[in-house]
Amino acid sequence: MMNVPLTVGSLLERAEKYFPKKTVVSRTHSGIQRFTYKEIGERTRRLMSAIKKLGLQTGERAGTMAWNHHRHLETYFAIPGMHAVLHTINIRLSPEHIVYIINHAEDQVLFIDEDLVPLVEKIADQIPTVKAFIIMTDQAELPKTTLQPAYSYEQLLAEGNPQEAFMTDIDENDLAGMCYTSATTGNPKGVIYSHRGIVLHSYALGLADTTALSESDVAMPVVPMFHVNAWGMPFANTWFGSTQVLPGPRFTPKVLAELIAEEGVTITAGVPTIWLGLLKELETGNYNTSSLRAVLCGGSAAPRGIIHAFETKFKVPFLHAFGMTETSPLATVARLKSYQSDLSEEEKLDQRAKQGMIVPGLEMKVINDQGEVNWDGADMGELLIRGPWIADEYYRDDRTEQAFQDGWLYTGDVATVDEEGVIKLVDRTKDLIKSGGEWISSVDLENALMGHEAVFEASVVAVPHPEWQERPVACIVLKDGFDEETMKQELMDYLSPQFAKWWLPDDIIFMKEIPKTSVGKFLKRELRAQLEDYFMKQN
Amino acid sequence: MMNVPLTVGSLLERAEKYFPKKTVVSRTHSGIQRFTYKEIGERTRRLMSAIKKLGLQTGERAGTMAWNHHRHLETYFAIPGMHAVLHTINIRLSPEHIVYIINHAEDQVLFIDEDLVPLVEKIADQIPTVKAFIIMTDQAELPKTTLQPAYSYEQLLAEGNPQEAFMTDIDENDLAGMCYTSATTGNPKGVIYSHRGIVLHSYALGLADTTALSESDVAMPVVPMFHVNAWGMPFANTWFGSTQVLPGPRFTPKVLAELIAEEGVTITAGVPTIWLGLLKELETGNYNTSSLRAVLCGGSAAPRGIIHAFETKFKVPFLHAFGMTETSPLATVARLKSYQSDLSEEEKLDQRAKQGMIVPGLEMKVINDQGEVNWDGADMGELLIRGPWIADEYYRDDRTEQAFQDGWLYTGDVATVDEEGVIKLVDRTKDLIKSGGEWISSVDLENALMGHEAVFEASVVAVPHPEWQERPVACIVLKDGFDEETMKQELMDYLSPQFAKWWLPDDIIFMKEIPKTSVGKFLKRELRAQLEDYFMKQN
Repeated sequence: MMNVPLTVGSLLERAEKYFPKKTVVSRTHSGIQRFTYKEIGERTRRLMSAIKKLGLQTGERAGTMAWNHHRHLETYFAIPGMHAVLHTINIRLSPEHIVYIINHAEDQVLFIDEDLVPLVEKIADQIPTVKAFIIMTDQAELPKTTLQPAYSYEQLLAEGNPQEAFMTDIDENDLAGMCYTSATTGNPKGVIYSHRGIVLHSYALGLADTTALSESDVAMPVVPMFHVNAWGMPFANTWFGSTQVLPGPRFTPKVLAELIAEEGVTITAGVPTIWLGLLKELETGNYNTSSLRAVLCGGSAAPRGIIHAFETKFKVPFLHAFGMTETSPLATVARLKSYQSDLSEEEKLDQRAKQGMIVPGLEMKVINDQGEVNWDGADMGELLIRGPWIADEYYRDDRTEQAFQDGWLYTGDVATVDEEGVIKLVDRTKDLIKSGGEWISSVDLENALMGHEAVFEASVVAVPHPEWQERPVACIVLKDGFDEETMKQELMDYLSPQFAKWWLPDDIIFMKEIPKTSVGKFLKRELRAQLEDYFMKQN
Repeated sequence: MMNVPLTVGSLLERAEKYFPKKTVVSRTHSGIQRFTYKEIGERTRRLMSAIKKLGLQTGERAGTMAWNHHRHLETYFAIPGMHAVLHTINIRLSPEHIVYIINHAEDQVLFIDEDLVPLVEKIADQIPTVKAFIIMTDQAELPKTTLQPAYSYEQLLAEGNPQEAFMTDIDENDLAGMCYTSATTGNPKGVIYSHRGIVLHSYALGLADTTALSESDVAMPVVPMFHVNAWGMPFANTWFGSTQVLPGPRFTPKVLAELIAEEGVTITAGVPTIWLGLLKELETGNYNTSSLRAVLCGGSAAPRGIIHAFETKFKVPFLHAFGMTETSPLATVARLKSYQSDLSEEEKLDQRAKQGMIVPGLEMKVINDQGEVNWDGADMGELLIRGPWIADEYYRDDRTEQAFQDGWLYTGDVATVDEEGVIKLVDRTKDLIKSGGEWISSVDLENALMGHEAVFEASVVAVPHPEWQERPVACIVLKDGFDEETMKQELMDYLSPQFAKWWLPDDIIFMKEIPKTSVGKFLKRELRAQLEDYFMKQN
């Protein structure tokens, strides 16, 4: 067979050649803009020649601090396309962590959205590797800035060469991208993506049995492009010639609902908290969501109630998946097998609320002290994954040793496996509640609670207990119009037939909001810190 | 990213683990048999240990001479799975060519279907590399044979180890399979397939935008497993956990129609001549074909009339694709782009009767003396293809130089490209009719003729002409009940408004049957030989 490397540049080349008229719909600070793939291709080539002229070299890192829009998409191809490394920076990290990762990655160039310039100005004197700041703005004039040297993205493009060629003489194992993932303690950890990994992951996203991304899709990644490459959708959707809708800066549930209705979005992707917000908006507004073939949900377990609400109230099919920064991220998808079509609706929902089956090309196992767990849906163990788009290290980081052993990624997630080989995450290893020598899944309790009509958000955490080691406490945000006084007992009564007595939370605490991580997951670490002395004080 | 090689054994491992209950339906000499993937996995592992015991070494070739059935499927995984090379032998080749390829491949072992034993006995003294003959039969006793040493496939399995492991420490570029393709003149040419190529090709078959092979499919490859790995379906369908229906030896259109109806086949694949036969059967019988989501057609251009007949008479969607032994084979698929949904039904059919667009992962160009042709649907040139599942040589063969140049496969097919990047094959370079300095497409004339209700088969060939260099002559097989006397003029009248005058055949010759190649394509070489003096004699 021909020795043709799998490269990121070739993905955009296909869109330019075969889908020149298809479009990218980009919401920026000044409104909606539309670009054909022919235009995106030309702009990307101009950008590639411009950053070369600025001095970016093969293998060097270029950072982006940007929302989901066409310019960010162009960097996705221009940077790997010239054989440099796309480093997407999570703009929601603390300034200290942003400084850390820019220095750790040794970014030579920074692409910055105009509204994020003030953030970067504050740290500019702490990031000495950065030799050029490229500001992404629709305005003809650069905003006033202390950043030096600062360039206008559009000015660079105007001076660039629209015929610049993508590098093809690339070892497919070379770095194409990187993304840092926040750690429980300490600095974020860098995950690096190869050209090969990105292309294989794109194949996986296009399979009929996974997310089936297709030319006919109008795909809207709500998941940020600074978070695991927006789950790889910008790469795969470009390759397949899908229409892309990039929802831009600081969107609201209303903006998302409008984009779905107006652009005819067929598939959208994000974390459960996004869908909770959208659900609320759909319930109050009057939106046409009939174009949607899938709401792809990952990042955290989607409560069964959300799935049910989307599907019964709005006839919008929900698609549950699982992955991590370390897994590019697609690892599992929850689809029924063909012979499960005769299950009851309830049973189907149960299956589809699990994380699903490992996708073609990856392997998984779930282990505990006794070895691989039984596939009985009950035995719990840590989930291990391996395959060609799974990281094998943290970039220049001692924590590599702990997570990568014997050729496997130790995910830190606790899962069960059922008879069908379908995994269900029951907790992060660190969030599992160890009560009197037994394990309680905080996730199961949360999902049950979020199935109650009064509950907007629920997070159950392990709280140190003098007698039982740890006991569960539920933190709840009620929907408007429900009363805390009466709800505590009602929720306890509601949970009680669903779980063994010793699984039930010792208390329910009501909050205005559950603290969240930079990517929208519940921040249990903070809840646990707040509740650390809860039982100790009582005694 | 982890350095995990793409290997053939892993495809079956996935089916064993995640689809142990799904089945392979196998038609053998003694009838229909059913095996679960759990059983297929165990049998394959037994086979792997058995052929190792027989002495087959890493990298050595093992030949198969077999129909489409479960045992052939098991060799697909056992031979590459132990890091040897699966050599599928086209049983329809002449004995001389079979002797040539067995010796050229240096097959160490031969797997032989019981009904093919006499064929092999006749050549046994000419194939000295073969050290073991393994006979695939349902019978407890081996048939009487002069082959030495002869083994019973089932006996070997009975003695094998059901826990034998697939080799995983494999360079993905190592050989996994090979297949010889017949040449216009001279001996067949060997094409070799790597583990990497087979896995990437399987991804391509699973994409929503290509053939979308899926767990929910009941897939019946009619294309022989001795011809380009039955277009890769046995590999991909096993990986995805599809039900497989393998139609076995010497099937008739009736057998195929019954299997479709009884097994609920959702996708089937083969060459146009197979579908012409099936169409005839469906018209006379009473079969339920409602389960079919696609009749995948390749190998030769499918006449527009077949597509129309399947879709309007039987509501069976037709899917046109193109590939060659050298391309694994999937290269293009004819699907409409989403924005073509407002074309008229006629225009849609025109698009879908073309060969289609290059699949994700491959590149193509069409060139003539002036360089790349215009994408106008008119300019003709030779089709070139490159990519990671395209051969880069003929195995130990001087003819490599001619077909593989500058990193491209020169397909020997003449094509046009339309504005959408969709290719249409107009001829083999050698079959194009060169008349008075202009080119006439024999395929266009054939497709037009096969659109006439009286025509069963049509083949148009270039016949040497004293004045014009070459002129087209049409060879026609009429359907029952049509009269040769009256049809000649009627067909000429029918063609005349559809083509320029100088394109029209100089004569129509009626035949009982059009000679065909070993894989069911029209054998134009033979027709041309018969007609060589046609115009010369007249003068």
